[in-house]
Amino acid sequence: MGKTDAKYIQEAVSVYLDRLGHYVPFEMHCIPDPKNAGKMNELQLKTQEATAILECLSAGDELILLDEKGETLSSVEFASMISKKINYGVRRLVFVSGGPYGFADAIYEKSSLLLSLSKMTFTHQMVRLIFVEQLYRAFTIIKGEKYHH
Amino acid sequence: MGKTDAKYIQEAVSVYLDRLGHYVPFEMHCIPDPKNAGKMNELQLKTQEATAILECLSAGDELILLDEKGETLSSVEFASMISKKINYGVRRLVFVSGGPYGFADAIYEKSSLLLSLSKMTFTHQMVRLIFVEQLYRAFTIIKGEKYHH
Repeated sequence: MGKTDAKYIQEAVSVYLDRLGHYVPFEMHCIPDPKNAGKMNELQLKTQEATAILECLSAGDELILLDEKGETLSSVEFASMISKKINYGVRRLVFVSGGPYGFADAIYEKSSLLLSLSKMTFTHQMVRLIFVEQLYRAFTIIKGEKYHH
Repeated sequence: MGKTDAKYIQEAVSVYLDRLGHYVPFEMHCIPDPKNAGKMNELQLKTQEATAILECLSAGDELILLDEKGETLSSVEFASMISKKINYGVRRLVFVSGGPYGFADAIYEKSSLLLSLSKMTFTHQMVRLIFVEQLYRAFTIIKGEKYHH
């Protein structure tokens, strides 16, 4: 959720998206904040975000939410989770990084896991960068490559 | 430790360094990897890094190590820690982000705290970016400003 306004972060994200493409088909969709977001209360904003998220989902997708209240995993544990999902034959894994208030109940109910990148709060742009780097790192771990110490 | 080779990350770091300067005098020093690092074993590398770190320290400095094995704090807890250190009259807080193998024993012994930004492993460049953003965020939290949700 939310557009990317800092070009330098977007550049860093692109680097990892390119690298990731060597391992797995991966797409990043940015859903811009609603135009009148500033006038909405928390519930209205989350409801509108939920509609936008649900529109992106297809049958058979597995939804994982990047959420501060979620489980924290090491990079190796994250890689192992990804590897298991692939082995179990998941059609598509969808990771969603939400707005500032978390997600609407409907989104939490549809998700299979809440994943926290850190106990610390990051900007949504940095979450994207950290997430694509971790996903790239996960594939290098799965393949036994040198990138991860 | 280690130079910054990705310009886009360096740009993002600069943005937060500028913002941070409004709250506190802060300097970032990058200690380049030793030239023959590739030929060194783990202990040699950590010993050489330790010498470089100790050269940067002055009497009265408090040393905090960014270390995966360290304590994880939320952004609010981190802000509260910074606030307490300031109130207790610390002369200078020095945060060190280490090399790939962690630190030499001498450095661990000199430190007052090990702080982990996440259970996940990040690149050393991303650690710098995440750290300066968190430090900036901490000061906005201490000052009761709007940046942090």
